[in-house]
Amino acid sequence: MELLFLGTSSGTPTKARNVSALALRRAGSKSWCLIDCGEGTQHQILHTPLSLAQLDTLLITHVHGDHCYGLPGLLASAALSGRKQPLRIIAPAAIRSLIDCYQQLTELRLTYAIDFIAVEELVGTNGAQQIITPEFAIDAFPLSHRVPSYAYRFSERQLEGKLDIDKLRAEDIPPGPMWHQLLKGAVLNFNGRQLNGHDYLLAPRQPRAVVIAGDNDEPSCLSEAVAGASLLVHEATFTVDIHHKVGPAAGHSDAARVARFAAGQQLPHLVLSHFSARYGYGSRSPCIADIEQEARQYYAGSLWLANDFDLLHLDKQLQLSVSSLRPSS
Amino acid sequence: MELLFLGTSSGTPTKARNVSALALRRAGSKSWCLIDCGEGTQHQILHTPLSLAQLDTLLITHVHGDHCYGLPGLLASAALSGRKQPLRIIAPAAIRSLIDCYQQLTELRLTYAIDFIAVEELVGTNGAQQIITPEFAIDAFPLSHRVPSYAYRFSERQLEGKLDIDKLRAEDIPPGPMWHQLLKGAVLNFNGRQLNGHDYLLAPRQPRAVVIAGDNDEPSCLSEAVAGASLLVHEATFTVDIHHKVGPAAGHSDAARVARFAAGQQLPHLVLSHFSARYGYGSRSPCIADIEQEARQYYAGSLWLANDFDLLHLDKQLQLSVSSLRPSS
Repeated sequence: MELLFLGTSSGTPTKARNVSALALRRAGSKSWCLIDCGEGTQHQILHTPLSLAQLDTLLITHVHGDHCYGLPGLLASAALSGRKQPLRIIAPAAIRSLIDCYQQLTELRLTYAIDFIAVEELVGTNGAQQIITPEFAIDAFPLSHRVPSYAYRFSERQLEGKLDIDKLRAEDIPPGPMWHQLLKGAVLNFNGRQLNGHDYLLAPRQPRAVVIAGDNDEPSCLSEAVAGASLLVHEATFTVDIHHKVGPAAGHSDAARVARFAAGQQLPHLVLSHFSARYGYGSRSPCIADIEQEARQYYAGSLWLANDFDLLHLDKQLQLSVSSLRPSS
Repeated sequence: MELLFLGTSSGTPTKARNVSALALRRAGSKSWCLIDCGEGTQHQILHTPLSLAQLDTLLITHVHGDHCYGLPGLLASAALSGRKQPLRIIAPAAIRSLIDCYQQLTELRLTYAIDFIAVEELVGTNGAQQIITPEFAIDAFPLSHRVPSYAYRFSERQLEGKLDIDKLRAEDIPPGPMWHQLLKGAVLNFNGRQLNGHDYLLAPRQPRAVVIAGDNDEPSCLSEAVAGASLLVHEATFTVDIHHKVGPAAGHSDAARVARFAAGQQLPHLVLSHFSARYGYGSRSPCIADIEQEARQYYAGSLWLANDFDLLHLDKQLQLSVSSLRPSS
């Protein structure tokens, strides 16, 4: 699974960081999901291999502008490039109204249908509902913020099957096209016996799961979401000292709060993002290094502080590697 | 007068050009006007000396997304940076509704008042109305496009006075504080005579006027607007050949059409912008050089094809010079 950060700043863009957006896909797949779409997300995408025509699902965590003001422009550009395939959008219901406003007031004419799913319905009183895409099962979880905010959990689907070769050999089933059919789950007749492919598949590996959280001041809301997950992306807008100065009304987390939660859940990988614009790259406080240092005090697992254009690869052995797609100029 | 181009692409951003936005100010002034605000305009501003706190008037030419989708993010960032001064917005009435949608649906909370002026009222049946800002008199003119679109004419105000020194000396009025008071228009008693400052001022120079047009397929709509103006900024979305392929329904102009109009009006300076993303920087057609070549066939005046971050300076002698504020990385 690959995560490509398109924006890692909170509230307002800086010269180095755009506002929130994160692309997720299975490595090697052209199809992808976009989680949040701050203003300028389509501009960031121009510098990546991602194509608006191949965007499968667009998810919004909450209605604040730094998470959704890039939506109308991205929808317009997808139409200008001739997209025909329907686009699935999972978002707070207010986002549907916002798109309606744009269509009525600014002549936004789309060349494709929008399959809009209100996230409120996925976590409603009728019990949680899962969205199944070709590559992921997606669950939503409510968080705690100034406005309703959500986390999305992506669990991979269609795990590759693996034949139990020892069993096939023990039963004298010869290698060749029959093995290939059994791998696909076919039921075959062989020497008067009925063979069911499912009887010759090894137990699949654990599916990888990652959780992408929106703005949230109570990481414990995510206890259920991160159970069995390998990686959590969570905001760390502040360090504790500045969080105290700003006060709790902002509805954000500090690095210590998130790190303690991740440690308690024994999460293998924690990725922090959504940094207040006051944290600079240099070594003079407040700086990004302050956030990292604070998180490491509480969390001994694999920690990464996201930058725009960071590409994170979570392999099947649940190892994380990071490279950068930042354009050179 | 200074014009700083913040976006020169039509419809969709490219790696080299953002969608429409143009800053205008008197040279040396911190106060400025913004004409159009495509998505990512606030990002472009980060790379310039312009401050959102000093934005005096924000004008929108029409409701298409590439001219206004950056508005909510810019308003939000101005609030986050603590702006208190009211912001004048001159725009189609639908933009007021769009801002209302944002305030209702996305919790956009502004720290300053918006003084909204519907451009329809400026050109209404009751006759044209002028908006007076500290530095400019602004007139609006209707254009021809798929949706109502407008041009704005900025005429400078507060021309600096100049004393008629020959006359002062001929009347034996001695240099010193009195000259300074006369320059300010004071009425003084001197040797039993009453002196009126206005009698000792030379006729002011011609005020500079520039016209910034929105999308428009009939340049002749601008005949009245450009009378006496020194500079017109107009879209040249296409060259004639591609315009024929696209067809007239787009409601845009080609370079030849605008250039013929500018020649007929004997306009001193013509600046083209809003180029279709299909025109590249290189020498392989279709390219920006094609647009320039086509315009030069019809217009022998001072011609400039705008790039993002081009800073155009129109001096008091109506000479135009160009530099670039493009960030180096």
